[in-house]
Amino acid sequence: MNNHTSFNPRETAGKAITCNAAVLRAPKQPFVLEKIQVHPPQKMELRIKILYTSVCHTDLSFWKGENEAQRAFPRILGHEAVGVVESVGDGVTDVKEGDYVIPIFNGECGDCIYCRKGTTNLCGKFRINPFKSVMTNDGKCRFSSEDGKPIYHFLNTSTFTEYSVLDSACVVKIDPKSPLKKMSLLSCGVSTGVGAAWKVANVQAGSSVAIFGLGAVGLAVAEGAGARGASKIIGVDVNPEKFDKGRIFGITNFVNPKDSSKLVHETIREMSGGGVDYSFECTGSLEVLREAFMSTHDGWGKTVLIGIYPTPKSLPIHPMELFDGRTITGTIFGDIKGRTQLPDLARDCMQGVLNLDGFITHELPFHKINEAFGLLTDGKALRCLLLL
Amino acid sequence: MNNHTSFNPRETAGKAITCNAAVLRAPKQPFVLEKIQVHPPQKMELRIKILYTSVCHTDLSFWKGENEAQRAFPRILGHEAVGVVESVGDGVTDVKEGDYVIPIFNGECGDCIYCRKGTTNLCGKFRINPFKSVMTNDGKCRFSSEDGKPIYHFLNTSTFTEYSVLDSACVVKIDPKSPLKKMSLLSCGVSTGVGAAWKVANVQAGSSVAIFGLGAVGLAVAEGAGARGASKIIGVDVNPEKFDKGRIFGITNFVNPKDSSKLVHETIREMSGGGVDYSFECTGSLEVLREAFMSTHDGWGKTVLIGIYPTPKSLPIHPMELFDGRTITGTIFGDIKGRTQLPDLARDCMQGVLNLDGFITHELPFHKINEAFGLLTDGKALRCLLLL
Repeated sequence: MNNHTSFNPRETAGKAITCNAAVLRAPKQPFVLEKIQVHPPQKMELRIKILYTSVCHTDLSFWKGENEAQRAFPRILGHEAVGVVESVGDGVTDVKEGDYVIPIFNGECGDCIYCRKGTTNLCGKFRINPFKSVMTNDGKCRFSSEDGKPIYHFLNTSTFTEYSVLDSACVVKIDPKSPLKKMSLLSCGVSTGVGAAWKVANVQAGSSVAIFGLGAVGLAVAEGAGARGASKIIGVDVNPEKFDKGRIFGITNFVNPKDSSKLVHETIREMSGGGVDYSFECTGSLEVLREAFMSTHDGWGKTVLIGIYPTPKSLPIHPMELFDGRTITGTIFGDIKGRTQLPDLARDCMQGVLNLDGFITHELPFHKINEAFGLLTDGKALRCLLLL
Repeated sequence: MNNHTSFNPRETAGKAITCNAAVLRAPKQPFVLEKIQVHPPQKMELRIKILYTSVCHTDLSFWKGENEAQRAFPRILGHEAVGVVESVGDGVTDVKEGDYVIPIFNGECGDCIYCRKGTTNLCGKFRINPFKSVMTNDGKCRFSSEDGKPIYHFLNTSTFTEYSVLDSACVVKIDPKSPLKKMSLLSCGVSTGVGAAWKVANVQAGSSVAIFGLGAVGLAVAEGAGARGASKIIGVDVNPEKFDKGRIFGITNFVNPKDSSKLVHETIREMSGGGVDYSFECTGSLEVLREAFMSTHDGWGKTVLIGIYPTPKSLPIHPMELFDGRTITGTIFGDIKGRTQLPDLARDCMQGVLNLDGFITHELPFHKINEAFGLLTDGKALRCLLLL
C-alpha cells in the first residue's frame, strides 16, 4: 500500500497552496524552480499533489516553442505523472481526497457527442488542444506567480509542479496497490504505443510489424505487438544503441537506415515477404513517414502515425498510392478513451499482460528537471522519472 | 430468357474470328471500326461475344493518353460490358459456352496470397493494371489487325469489339434471366459506387453523406447510401443540370460550389451539424479531394477516394490533420471481389434492393462509339450503352 498523503487536506482545501513548480518563462530557457500559488479547484475540477512526473518528447517539443501553439508563457509543462487528490471542487463525485490518479492530457467528459459516439477518444470539451492554456470553466489560470501574475496551463495537465489543478475529465483513478512509479508511463507514452498496436492497428497474432523510432512510444508499440503475438517485429532507428534495449522489448529484427544505400522500405519489403502488415511512425519526420507507408504490404498494410509532424507541409503520398490497398491513420493517445478504457490497461500491466519494466531508465529529484530534459534530448533516456 | 447466341461455336471454336472492333490507334483520335482477328482463348482464358458495352470515364481518360500507362497503341479500350461465352480454353470449368458473363477489369484468381487473404480485392495476378496490355499467360495479344500486327489489350477486358478474349479470372457469370443491358453497369461504375458506400465506408442507417461529382459513380454511391438508410445525402457538382437526376437517386440536398464564396466544406459542415459521417470523391480533382476530406465530421469522418488523380502530386492534407479522427482511403471497384462477391450485387439488383434504372441515359449502335464518347465528354450522358 502506498502512502503519500503528506499534506493535510483539512488545512489546505479551499485555500491557495504555495509550492515549487518548474516554470518555463520562454522557449528553450532552462526551467527555474520557483514558488507559485496553486488556487483551489473550481466546479468539476480537482487539485492533486504530483508524486512522480516523467518527461516526454511532447514536453521537449513545446519547450522548443517552435509552433504557434507553443507561445503561451510563463507556462508549466508536463503531462505524464501520478498524483494523489488533495481536494475536489463542486460536483466531483468519482474521485475523492486521497485517491491516486493519472492525469490524462486527452480528457473524456463522457457527455458530449464525441464521447457518446463511442468510436472516438477525441472529447469535444477536453481533447488534447495545444492552443489551450487556461481552465475550461472560466478561462482563467489556477497557477499564479508570487507577484500574482497568471502562469499558463499545458495540455489539460501541467505536472511539473508539486500541486496542479485539473478538470476531473482529465484524470483517471488507479488502484493504490499498483506500482505507482510505472503508472506514470500510462499518462502518455506507453498507452499511446500500446493503444496504437491494439486499438488502432489491431495487430493480429502471427503478423509482421515495423516500428520507426525506438523511443519509449516505439518500444511500447513493440510491447503491445508482442503481447498480441506478432511474429516479426522490425525496429528502425539511426541510433544502433537503441537495438539492445529493443531486443528486451521483443523486437526481432533491426534496420539502421545508415547501414545501406537502399531505401528502408525496400529493405523491409525484402525482410517481410513484400511488406509488413503494420507500420508505426514514431519519429515525426515526413521522410520517415513515407518510408513507413511504403514498408507495408500492398493490399492490406496499415500505417499508424504517432509522431508530431511539421505543418503546413503536406503528406508525402500520392493520391493514387492510396489505391494499392495501403491505409494510413493518425492517432491521439492510441485511440484509448482515458477515463473509461485506461483502467483496463492499468489492470493488464498489473497482471503481466504488459510489462512496464525497462521504460524508466533514470530517476532524478524534481529540482534536476533540466538534467532530465538533457537526457531525453541526447537519446540517453527512455523515460526519466522526476520524484517530487 | 435472353438468347444472343447468334454464333455457332462448333464452327468458330479453336479458330481465329474475324469481326469488327473500335481500335484506338493514337490518343485523342476518333475510333475507327475495323476488321480484326480475335484468336482462340489459351489456357484458363475464354472468348466472349460482346452484347452490350458502355463508356466510362476511365475509357475517356485512357483515350486522352496523358499518362505513361496509356501509351500502348493500337489498343482496344472498353471495360463495362455484358457478353456471352463463345468458347473456353483449357482448364476453364466454371463457365462454359453460352454462359452470360460480365467482364471484370479487376480480376480475382482465387489462389494468390491476396485472394486467399480475403480482406482485399486486389488480386496478385489480375488486379487492375493500366500498364498491362497483353495476356498474362504468354505476354502476347489475342487481337491482331488484318495485316497480322498485334493490337493491345486494356484493363484485362477490352470490350469495344464484337469478340474479346479474357482470363477466366476476369469474368463473372450472371443469371441469364437478369436484365442484361443493365448488368453492364456492374462491370465498373455502379459496382464501384455501391461498393464504396457498402464495403469501404460501410454507411450506416441515419447517417449523413456527401458525394462530390454526380456522374454515374457518384449517383451509384447515392443509390447505395440510400439503400443503407442514410438520412442526409448531399450532392456536390458545378453542373446544376445534374441535380434533377440526383433527386431521383435519393440525393436530399445539393451544393453548387459556384453559388457561394464559402468553401464547400464550410457549407457542408453547416448543413450537417459539424460535418458528414462519410464523403466520397468522384471527380479526380485534388482541390475537390481536400474539400471532401474537410467536409467530414472530426472524430469519425471517413473519406473514400474513387476518382483518378494526377500524379506525381501529393495529397493536399497535412499529416497533423489525420490526428483529428478523420480517415481517408482509396478504393478500386468499391472493394468488391469480382468473381465471389459480384453475384450478390447482381442478385440485389434483381431483387430491387438496388435500382439500376436511370443510369443508362442513351443507347447507340456500336458504330456510333465516337458519338457516345462525345456525350460523356459533354456531361450529357451518365452511361451510353453501345449495342453490338
